[in-house]
Amino acid sequence: MFDINLLQDIISSEITKLQIKNEPKELYDPMRYAMESGGKRIRPALVLASCNLFTEEVGHAIPLALAFEIFHNFTLLHDDIMDNSPIRRNRPTVHVKWNPNIAILSGDAMMIKAYELLSKVPDKHFKPIFDLFNKTALEVCEGQQYDMNFETQKNVTESEYLNMIKLKTSVLIAACLKAGATIGGADDTSGDLLYDFGLNMGIAFQLQDDLLDTYAKTSEFGKKNGNDIITGKKTFLLINALEKSNPELKTELNGLIGNKSIPDEIKIKQVIEIYNKLHIKELTENKIQEYYFSAMKSIEKLTVKEEKKHVLMTFAEQIINRKK
Amino acid sequence: MFDINLLQDIISSEITKLQIKNEPKELYDPMRYAMESGGKRIRPALVLASCNLFTEEVGHAIPLALAFEIFHNFTLLHDDIMDNSPIRRNRPTVHVKWNPNIAILSGDAMMIKAYELLSKVPDKHFKPIFDLFNKTALEVCEGQQYDMNFETQKNVTESEYLNMIKLKTSVLIAACLKAGATIGGADDTSGDLLYDFGLNMGIAFQLQDDLLDTYAKTSEFGKKNGNDIITGKKTFLLINALEKSNPELKTELNGLIGNKSIPDEIKIKQVIEIYNKLHIKELTENKIQEYYFSAMKSIEKLTVKEEKKHVLMTFAEQIINRKK
Repeated sequence: MFDINLLQDIISSEITKLQIKNEPKELYDPMRYAMESGGKRIRPALVLASCNLFTEEVGHAIPLALAFEIFHNFTLLHDDIMDNSPIRRNRPTVHVKWNPNIAILSGDAMMIKAYELLSKVPDKHFKPIFDLFNKTALEVCEGQQYDMNFETQKNVTESEYLNMIKLKTSVLIAACLKAGATIGGADDTSGDLLYDFGLNMGIAFQLQDDLLDTYAKTSEFGKKNGNDIITGKKTFLLINALEKSNPELKTELNGLIGNKSIPDEIKIKQVIEIYNKLHIKELTENKIQEYYFSAMKSIEKLTVKEEKKHVLMTFAEQIINRKK
Repeated sequence: MFDINLLQDIISSEITKLQIKNEPKELYDPMRYAMESGGKRIRPALVLASCNLFTEEVGHAIPLALAFEIFHNFTLLHDDIMDNSPIRRNRPTVHVKWNPNIAILSGDAMMIKAYELLSKVPDKHFKPIFDLFNKTALEVCEGQQYDMNFETQKNVTESEYLNMIKLKTSVLIAACLKAGATIGGADDTSGDLLYDFGLNMGIAFQLQDDLLDTYAKTSEFGKKNGNDIITGKKTFLLINALEKSNPELKTELNGLIGNKSIPDEIKIKQVIEIYNKLHIKELTENKIQEYYFSAMKSIEKLTVKEEKKHVLMTFAEQIINRKK
């Protein structure tokens, strides 16, 4: 039985062994750069952890785990072009270090590379995993499109927002867990329970992200907080604050968010004051707990030895307790 | 036995039946737009034609044919962003009609959609086709990267150019033929012969394109010729002209190509005069014939009934005799 940290290390080591061609270097150097730039390797580690619930032989799940990790990094690469993000994991993004055309094309090549690795999944498990992978990949695109739409969409409801983060973030985590289970020989019921666990934890993870951006202690969070407030991002916090405000407060909040002439520090302070008045922090924490409990219920129903469940339970606790 | 035109019609009809979701519309409308914008449907027709060499039941090859067509249209969509092309098939390109972000993302979704269709290939033929598809898709990206590199690369040799068009254009045509054969139940030797046929015809097709851009009669070609000369594109013609020029002529030719102050008509006329002096037209025609003969040799070696071969032979003749 392997814990998540060990599995993350296994993945990191496997990534350095990935066979990526050299020529043309403008195509493959960015791929190597994107894959070797670190990150927490959570998705592939979850593939292996989920597989490990059902078998001690996790080695044959490594190409599958890598396929998910490459796909995830491909989405980051293209998202960074679309969001015009200059930095990812403390390094210039590919479209900045090279150029947008190279970022588009090397991203495309990464997606194909993910499918190439998928091809190493043993025949008897291939088909359901391939179908799940395709369905999930398309949903991730849908999530990214909704996310872009929300930038200019005037009213975003809580349920629209939750659906967006489900598509953009959760379904991939859920698919990693389900595919890992499948390759480990799990029955369909177990696969579905793990999918639900991933879906709920993925949403909890994103809500925790929203919460930390505004409420983390700066030193622990590692980056300045309040960034979502400054950019006016429609997070779970803002959407709920607007929902719960009376007309006057709503006008005040919208005015604050849209006002570019107020100094950042003051804007953050005043928005947080409104959030506090409306108990947005507690509301978000409760919502995270809800998703966490739903996730835990799926794990409880799993018919694997209790000690095996600890890996995923610890992972879930880390997510909701993380401070950065 | 079906002829190519009939197969193209079958494909066009199948494309209108493609199940493409509606929401989010910014993701799926461009996909529908790109797929319904016409084009010659050569690649999917070749999948079916190749399958039809070995079986009369070509219906089960339709999803495979569509997968190749969607993949091809995805590459056009992303290439158009990279090349900053405003028009494709007489309509605004996706990145112009919508915006570059939508074009990137809907292109990504199209590639996934291609894999979704691939999933309908019968199990017993799936694996070799999937591996060929992945290998080919990656090569197409390599070809596009070389093509972009050549824009700023000072010297491009004939063999570098031929390798680029092989990757960018031919391998996909070759893969369509080979995959069609595989799904039709062909043996490996036949599949390889058809692959070689496609490889040679793909190169012949692209060289014919280069030739027509400069030498087509304008009324037949449908667009003004000399475009490659105006943009200074490193075509088979220019690369060979530079290769064959003595130092003085080379300086003159480079000067002409790089000179932005000469009126287009005069530039075209003078470059063509140099080409004529160096017999570039004949040299290109001979090269096309060479590839055509190699392609025909592969067809001759095929162990299928002679009458069945006519579909592909007619297709090949049409390519080298086309005037536009």
